[in-house]
Amino acid sequence: MNNLAIEFWFDFSSPYSYLAAEKIDALAASYQRIVHWHPILLGAIFQITNTVPLVQLPLKGDYSVRDFSRSARFFGLPFTMPSKFPLPTQLAARAYYWLCERDVTMAHNFARAVFRALFVDDRDISDLAVVCDVAATMGLDADALSLAVAQPEVKARLKSETDAAILQGVFGAPFFMVNNEPFWGADRLTQLEKWLATGGF
Amino acid sequence: MNNLAIEFWFDFSSPYSYLAAEKIDALAASYQRIVHWHPILLGAIFQITNTVPLVQLPLKGDYSVRDFSRSARFFGLPFTMPSKFPLPTQLAARAYYWLCERDVTMAHNFARAVFRALFVDDRDISDLAVVCDVAATMGLDADALSLAVAQPEVKARLKSETDAAILQGVFGAPFFMVNNEPFWGADRLTQLEKWLATGGF
Repeated sequence: MNNLAIEFWFDFSSPYSYLAAEKIDALAASYQRIVHWHPILLGAIFQITNTVPLVQLPLKGDYSVRDFSRSARFFGLPFTMPSKFPLPTQLAARAYYWLCERDVTMAHNFARAVFRALFVDDRDISDLAVVCDVAATMGLDADALSLAVAQPEVKARLKSETDAAILQGVFGAPFFMVNNEPFWGADRLTQLEKWLATGGF
Repeated sequence: MNNLAIEFWFDFSSPYSYLAAEKIDALAASYQRIVHWHPILLGAIFQITNTVPLVQLPLKGDYSVRDFSRSARFFGLPFTMPSKFPLPTQLAARAYYWLCERDVTMAHNFARAVFRALFVDDRDISDLAVVCDVAATMGLDADALSLAVAQPEVKARLKSETDAAILQGVFGAPFFMVNNEPFWGADRLTQLEKWLATGGF
């Protein structure tokens, strides 16, 4: 792991990951850091940790929906609670890794566009047609992407990234690692920034 | 509920509640607000929500201990991970309510002293002798307090406060309510402050 890089794990179905995805590249750049983005499948991790999605928890679920919206406003970002939520994200995640091998900047832009499709425009990003449309709107080759997400090596990449995340202790999203210091949650970006500014506190 | 008051629910065994307890009165005062403190028993709430203490969760538990310390440093507060944790807090909570009926300011000071006994000095606040010693150090009548925590009406107050918290949707600690807007976690004090400053956002 490059000490100059910030590792960033997320699931496309995580509202707090959407908020973090809008902020992390600019924050990192102001401290001369790059960010390695790792879309993963939180469902696979929740099976290991015996966790259920936040919105399904009694009391906490209702609060969470309110907190998603309020946190978005606090971050100055638009937010719509998706009508289908949570939803499967493996197609978007595989598309990310396929793009990432071609153009990292483009892949980050694609990831943010997928997040906005879900959390701003309430589109069903579990639908391959929607993922392809997001890509096409950016001028990407949607036909090639459509074939890529079914390729065994692309599927394997997502699985190995999720397995690697578990080995790193990732139990939720967004999750960050800065020089071996773990940060969980969009609300820890303030601590992460202080860590970058001070070299640890 | 007084619209000018901030409701503050906490458990003496919650590290993030300790951090919040050190900050909330001064924060509220700067917006001409008072704070109603409500120590509760998180264990009773966790039975309803089928939750276990944070430190007992796989992966998340190890992270949490690290985050307690780091968050304390971020808040500029001393912190020692208690050797006995989590622990029963009903004696400290009952003592709080008994004191509160006599002198609210003194009760808040006592609560902060109990938190520091646990999270700075690593003392066993489940022990009545320790709770009494904390009170005595503040010049309070430890003998009267020692008798008070066994009184049925004091026990009933803690039970009714915990029941009322559940009815308000409190599922964790620290938990705040500002004009019917709920905030969970010491990390939401920044949003709570913006809420006070703007009248809601």
